[in-house]
Amino acid sequence: MSILLLTSVSTEEETMWLNQLRSALPEEDVTLLAELNDRADVDIAIVANPPQEVLRTLPKLKMIQSLWAGVDALLGDPTLPENVPLVRLIDPTLSASMAEATATHVLALHRDLPRYAKQQQRQEWQQHELLRSSDRTIGILGLGEMGVASAQQLRALGFNVRGWSRSLKSIEGIKCFAGQERLKEFLQGLDILVNLLPLTPETMGILSKDLFFQLPKGTGLINFGRGGHQIEGDVVAALDDGQLSHAVLDVFSQEPLPADNPLWRHPKITLLPHVAAPTNQKTAVEIVARNIKNYRRTGLLPKQVERSVGY
Amino acid sequence: MSILLLTSVSTEEETMWLNQLRSALPEEDVTLLAELNDRADVDIAIVANPPQEVLRTLPKLKMIQSLWAGVDALLGDPTLPENVPLVRLIDPTLSASMAEATATHVLALHRDLPRYAKQQQRQEWQQHELLRSSDRTIGILGLGEMGVASAQQLRALGFNVRGWSRSLKSIEGIKCFAGQERLKEFLQGLDILVNLLPLTPETMGILSKDLFFQLPKGTGLINFGRGGHQIEGDVVAALDDGQLSHAVLDVFSQEPLPADNPLWRHPKITLLPHVAAPTNQKTAVEIVARNIKNYRRTGLLPKQVERSVGY
Repeated sequence: MSILLLTSVSTEEETMWLNQLRSALPEEDVTLLAELNDRADVDIAIVANPPQEVLRTLPKLKMIQSLWAGVDALLGDPTLPENVPLVRLIDPTLSASMAEATATHVLALHRDLPRYAKQQQRQEWQQHELLRSSDRTIGILGLGEMGVASAQQLRALGFNVRGWSRSLKSIEGIKCFAGQERLKEFLQGLDILVNLLPLTPETMGILSKDLFFQLPKGTGLINFGRGGHQIEGDVVAALDDGQLSHAVLDVFSQEPLPADNPLWRHPKITLLPHVAAPTNQKTAVEIVARNIKNYRRTGLLPKQVERSVGY
Repeated sequence: MSILLLTSVSTEEETMWLNQLRSALPEEDVTLLAELNDRADVDIAIVANPPQEVLRTLPKLKMIQSLWAGVDALLGDPTLPENVPLVRLIDPTLSASMAEATATHVLALHRDLPRYAKQQQRQEWQQHELLRSSDRTIGILGLGEMGVASAQQLRALGFNVRGWSRSLKSIEGIKCFAGQERLKEFLQGLDILVNLLPLTPETMGILSKDLFFQLPKGTGLINFGRGGHQIEGDVVAALDDGQLSHAVLDVFSQEPLPADNPLWRHPKITLLPHVAAPTNQKTAVEIVARNIKNYRRTGLLPKQVERSVGY
């Protein structure tokens, strides 16, 4: 049987993935679509933004392994075969990288860096009161691997940390909330809100006017989830009237974000080009190879995406 | 006996110090110079940038307690009485605050925030390789309370950390260097250099061309020590030719920094108005009150400043 690597990334990046997967799986036949003789040979597909229509033409497919952690784009593909188990990348390196990104930008907001940057532009020497991290409360939307790692990192830096998720979690030192009915309570009293939710039909557009107005006036926002989580116009409106003090946005409904999008120029937005937690090719290949070797040896699949919930 | 509070801070700030010191030391007579009847009554002076000439007119002075951690300005006063023990503020809150400032700006440089901020100004969507913190080496000049707290915080964030000090320290997980003869070795291979030295005749002007050219090309610089540590023209020259990639400067030879100083406008400088680790009035008063109560009860003075070394 063959393993098909199916992506829409650049040829250069695809070649790097192919070479690394081949050297991590020397006993396997890892191939690209163009080099494939018989589609019935493929029992495993490794995918990164795969083109539509192809996966359903593989009659013997037993497993789809994503190279990304988020599978919202894949689940949005109407041609995705329904009954093939889907596995997303769960990489501790990725969670550590996201925790680091969260710490970096929470500290930047906590320490008023955007305000001091504006003062520097005006040559204005003005000190502002510095709160202690223990006087700040940070809320994390989403308590998956990345949310938990981020919450624990913030806790270690002395912040009060709350987390909100679909089903209730229990994490030492983190005050946990779950479900729509406790969202309001979770939001009250936050200084900074960090979004690390998966994008699902339930979480689409959650960062909206409705939610912002349940936060204390002047809360900071960090969106490291997906562009689909935020209503861009509502973010801008909340920044303009001071309901949000500042927003750090790493993800957008369209990426790359077009140069004429007004988010680029908003004085209260720190705009990042989707760099919070980039896939680490080396560790991703190790994890995917381990999943596949394990499947070959035992016939067991790793934890699968629950399609009805979206992750 | 009386305690004299002697400062050159604003009247408003002085009143806050006075009220807090009085309530923390209810059994003491804490007074300002203007209200003092007899200078021979004073045996303890609590100082924050005290005006010159006054301390030497107090014949019974037994202890000078600084409200600041750095006593370089005080030691530079030629009218400072020579034989009165001098105590500087050693406040764990202050060390924690400095460690937080160091973590904030090391993470900001590690994560390329200045570069992404410039890209945002140009509406340019461009991702850059993200190194792991374990692939970065951070060097800390100065291993006093603040240096050690900062080093440990960076270690907890996964960075490789080196420290350099006058006399050799031993700190778990930190590679320690000491003395002029090992400075070169300490500087080699650094990604980011953080200055947390006390300002003394030995360390004055240490952040100079000579030092910068012992660093790898493109090292980041963070100066949270004193303005007197840096030769401003050398910092600018090293930034302009790429020897330094970026500088975060919180301290300056003249503060507030005049609006016409070109440092304000340099595209590779993050300029902060001396906010890395502001004195926390509440904890500072607690520590000073504890020192004084202990002295009254036991006659013992806290650890004194060694004037010949400067801290």
